[in-house]
Amino acid sequence: MLKEYEVKNVYMGRLPYGADLIEELTEIVKEKKIKAGKVTVIGAVKQGVISFYDQEEQEYYDEIFDEKLEIANCTGNISLKDAKPMIHAHISFGNEKGEMFGGHLSSGTIIFAGEYIIEEFAGEPFKRGLDKVTGLTLWE
Amino acid sequence: MLKEYEVKNVYMGRLPYGADLIEELTEIVKEKKIKAGKVTVIGAVKQGVISFYDQEEQEYYDEIFDEKLEIANCTGNISLKDAKPMIHAHISFGNEKGEMFGGHLSSGTIIFAGEYIIEEFAGEPFKRGLDKVTGLTLWE
Amino acid sequence: MLKEYEVKNVYMGRLPYGADLIEELTEIVKEKKIKAGKVTVIGAVKQGVISFYDQEEQEYYDEIFDEKLEIANCTGNISLKDAKPMIHAHISFGNEKGEMFGGHLSSGTIIFAGEYIIEEFAGEPFKRGLDKVTGLTLWE
Repeated sequence: MLKEYEVKNVYMGRLPYGADLIEELTEIVKEKKIKAGKVTVIGAVKQGVISFYDQEEQEYYDEIFDEKLEIANCTGNISLKDAKPMIHAHISFGNEKGEMFGGHLSSGTIIFAGEYIIEEFAGEPFKRGLDKVTGLTLWE
Repeated sequence: MLKEYEVKNVYMGRLPYGADLIEELTEIVKEKKIKAGKVTVIGAVKQGVISFYDQEEQEYYDEIFDEKLEIANCTGNISLKDAKPMIHAHISFGNEKGEMFGGHLSSGTIIFAGEYIIEEFAGEPFKRGLDKVTGLTLWE
Repeated sequence: MLKEYEVKNVYMGRLPYGADLIEELTEIVKEKKIKAGKVTVIGAVKQGVISFYDQEEQEYYDEIFDEKLEIANCTGNISLKDAKPMIHAHISFGNEKGEMFGGHLSSGTIIFAGEYIIEEFAGEPFKRGLDKVTGLTLWE
């Protein structure tokens, strides 16, 4: 199941100190009305929150890392959920020893410094709906 | 040693539950006849297999992670090997505690849920051939 | 704070054995006069050096990993610093057990094998200047 796109616009920008990473990115994407695309971020956070999806219980569990961390990588995609632009992103963090933690990016990840690149794709956007096999809201 | 390209097409899609990650991606790329490009994936797996290249012995060794894992990041490139499209990808996984494992993506990595973006580049594709210094099949 | 771009060119290439990763990438970007863009690398290194930014002391501290490592991911952006193209990249490594280390990519990371993709963006480049809140040179 795939859709074809063209690159429409690219946005680069700096994220505000103290903001929530996924909420801030989602704001930008909604403001620019981006319905399909890709998101990449590097930077550092004051606190990181990731989620792990328990494939058997079909529940997300949060892990809160209450420490200063580098964002080693953050990669996401943009599609529609309930007719609104939604970013699904995964992230990996490195601490002061370089040890890493990673998973699904969740709210509560607070920006110290962040630089993003958003690539906007032109074409029919994917819409998310409940997938019965996995319990996730996947592309239909 | 570099080559210049233009972005031709972008594909976004959902990977099937239970399929082998690198084999499934390779199928898509072969079907679409993509000879140069970039691959990005996020999602989760039922099992992960990565390889580490021993730079002295010049051999790949597999590490099998027989557990549910998030795909924190998966990044690959597309070129030709033996005249066929080939994806070289590296991957990093996060477990339920957020602990990470990463390396060269190998067969045996089984998709729970996966969302990919493939960017197809127009231009002369790279071809892989044996590099005597490293023992790897690199771009010639 | 964001700027809008179009994708101008894409470069794929192979990095030379034994070279310094960030210095080599920076050379390419300077030679091609790329002032805005994105960098992605996969491969392996003979030694890795990452930096962690202490957000309170506002100092970078290096961590040297004197071992053979896979580059699980390396993601960077291109902008101008002191009127010259500058790459800001973060990297994550996997060792022979798949254990990962990651942070800000620093000099001293020595290439065993590396394949990069550089996307050049057309548009007004960001310039870096001292940010008083974080002590970092951020986009102005």
